[in-house]
Amino acid sequence: MTTDHPTADLDDVVHQRHRLGILTIANGVKRVEFGYLREALDLTGGNLSRHITVLAEAGLLGVEKGYDGKRPKTWVHITPAGSAALAKELAALRALLNGVTGHEPGS
Amino acid sequence: MTTDHPTADLDDVVHQRHRLGILTIANGVKRVEFGYLREALDLTGGNLSRHITVLAEAGLLGVEKGYDGKRPKTWVHITPAGSAALAKELAALRALLNGVTGHEPGS
Repeated sequence: MTTDHPTADLDDVVHQRHRLGILTIANGVKRVEFGYLREALDLTGGNLSRHITVLAEAGLLGVEKGYDGKRPKTWVHITPAGSAALAKELAALRALLNGVTGHEPGS
Repeated sequence: MTTDHPTADLDDVVHQRHRLGILTIANGVKRVEFGYLREALDLTGGNLSRHITVLAEAGLLGVEKGYDGKRPKTWVHITPAGSAALAKELAALRALLNGVTGHEPGS
């Protein structure tokens, strides 16, 4: 059977909370530096790396390595597929929140 | 360091998409039957059972076994802790969506 519950439109690749954080920060900016993400999301470098790899392997993030002066740096940017996936996730979350509100009129 | 990114307020126990579905359906009703949840969320019985166990072990759901006529049935109900955890999750999702909107005025 099919379902129209909003959670059916959530994709675990995007929905996982740290990956959702990465995508929302990367969305709408040209690129974001690894250390910025690590601090903004309060993640260890290893944990952040693993989530970036999942997103990059899904085609949702691109990764660039380079230098800031002499210091090696990593930047990530959201891809068009990443923006589309994030938009779908946010639409499903809006539907979920609207449904919850709908079940509790007046709240 | 601390972070105020909204995803920091998401709890994996509640945020996982199927568990979020279970809690939103259970919220605001007295109890909900296992088969109803399975169909509404398009889950296998085994998968639904595992998620209910995670939520019950966290104290967010209560589980009742009984009979509907001669047929054995399982019902779940959300606990006060479950309602509070869901409210926190939904508040964090609202903050996330408001933040995204804030980054993209006019969208």
